[in-house]
Amino acid sequence: MQYNNEDHLFQDCVVNINGELTDAKQAKISVLDRGFLYGDSIYEVTYSENNTLLFVNEHMQRLLNSARLLHMELEQSIEFYIQEMLRTLKHAQIPRAYIRLIITRGISPIGLDPFHTLGGQYVIIAKPLPEYPHDMYTKGLKMMISQVQRNPKEATDPNAKSGNYLNNVMAIREAKSKGYFDALMANSQGDITEGTTFNVWMVKDKTLYTPHSNSGLLKGITRSKVMQLCKENNIAFQEANLKAADFHKADEVFLTSATKGVMSINQIDDIVYGKSIADWPMTRRLAELYSQLLKEEEINSPYKY
Amino acid sequence: MQYNNEDHLFQDCVVNINGELTDAKQAKISVLDRGFLYGDSIYEVTYSENNTLLFVNEHMQRLLNSARLLHMELEQSIEFYIQEMLRTLKHAQIPRAYIRLIITRGISPIGLDPFHTLGGQYVIIAKPLPEYPHDMYTKGLKMMISQVQRNPKEATDPNAKSGNYLNNVMAIREAKSKGYFDALMANSQGDITEGTTFNVWMVKDKTLYTPHSNSGLLKGITRSKVMQLCKENNIAFQEANLKAADFHKADEVFLTSATKGVMSINQIDDIVYGKSIADWPMTRRLAELYSQLLKEEEINSPYKY
Repeated sequence: MQYNNEDHLFQDCVVNINGELTDAKQAKISVLDRGFLYGDSIYEVTYSENNTLLFVNEHMQRLLNSARLLHMELEQSIEFYIQEMLRTLKHAQIPRAYIRLIITRGISPIGLDPFHTLGGQYVIIAKPLPEYPHDMYTKGLKMMISQVQRNPKEATDPNAKSGNYLNNVMAIREAKSKGYFDALMANSQGDITEGTTFNVWMVKDKTLYTPHSNSGLLKGITRSKVMQLCKENNIAFQEANLKAADFHKADEVFLTSATKGVMSINQIDDIVYGKSIADWPMTRRLAELYSQLLKEEEINSPYKY
Repeated sequence: MQYNNEDHLFQDCVVNINGELTDAKQAKISVLDRGFLYGDSIYEVTYSENNTLLFVNEHMQRLLNSARLLHMELEQSIEFYIQEMLRTLKHAQIPRAYIRLIITRGISPIGLDPFHTLGGQYVIIAKPLPEYPHDMYTKGLKMMISQVQRNPKEATDPNAKSGNYLNNVMAIREAKSKGYFDALMANSQGDITEGTTFNVWMVKDKTLYTPHSNSGLLKGITRSKVMQLCKENNIAFQEANLKAADFHKADEVFLTSATKGVMSINQIDDIVYGKSIADWPMTRRLAELYSQLLKEEEINSPYKY
């Protein structure tokens, strides 16, 4: 075992397991929990600014959708889980937090049958939100298109945000091993779907495109917020079937994610799109609009702690 | 929480976590372990008869293959894990045991990148082998072909026996909710691949068939043992691309699995193949041959406790 860095890793991380608050080092779950045995769990990641949880209703609606897709009955109301997140954040005293809510189908006799569970469990993990270097926004990230295909919706639907993330782990592993920051994934038809933990966008001849939701992707909350911003600001965009070649010919590419917001991509495979945000006017504009939206959400969100 | 049955569930179950033996109720793993967060783990299930671990080398070779497919470096030798399984079984004092070895990529900072792990963890779960009613062998099981497609090997390779089992959980859930015992799964071309936790075989006009390994399936140990028995006994068999319609037209259908051995299937969807093992001579013959092989393995296996 190489647990040299364990203390550093657990630092500042507070966990709530079924209502019990504990520090990360003590936070454990049964090895018979279906979340551990089969990845039979759903989750959401959201975050806070200035002691305010942002876009929490949107994330909870998606959690409900994941539960519906996996036929998982939640034992508590959405409001209960939100209050538990707020209680955890208050206890953790982290004004700008990353917060992950995981709900598992619980402990059952070993065997796949999900009807035999003894009841669900929930885990909330709160820690300081990672501070990404400013350069990542202004100079962009280097991505590759993975050889690993995205799970098709007919098999394991990417729209269920679950504990089955090996598909994406294999894609980011490939990217890291080849010197890229992360990976985009295509479906079996060669249509780009999304990144391993983010949605992707491209601009070509001043038109904004993002992979069609029917390509098999997780409909990101930040993706939908950017779509809303486009509508409000008369910026035309299209959901489209986009191949690797379309991305390679793009003028700008960027990602959206809850924790990263709108972030530039300056390279996909061996294609470089430019040097800095000065070369990507659409990305800059949407990043500014999204930043403004975050400030408004911080003012308007009732979920303060 | 509905933990009424917890004590019953944990009874007779012994767990080894990174070398520490404990009863199942206390057996817990960090919520930051990648096995819990992403299903980023591999596993094998084997079993024992009369204090003898069976086919353990074959299972360990498959574990190595799963590790290779997922680029997971094992920190200990195969012999180490076998000795830990034997130590757990000796402690548990279960002569006829189900034993599951799970190896995770360990704890890492939250994020998919698998290179940042602080070191793998292993969990061994031992409990009495389920005693299946004799009727299941003689009268057969009622199966359906699931609407849930099997994960394609280009996305999440079924040959890596991992902690990502939601695909199969969704298929058995569909089957149970419709009154079936379990489900067979097809790939996107409509070729039957395997059951949720077992391989499948069919007989048509005295010829034995099983889905081709390139259809996207986990190559079962019992499947390969039955193939070996066929060769030794001059029973012709073919790996083939088999559709639902082929199974519907079969004369006999059966499954193979480590814990169930050779078990009859008497119905798929609304097609009934017969009433009992008397109607299925090939299934009966292979079940007898496999039973004999188990006895030989029990004598020859050096892994006693």
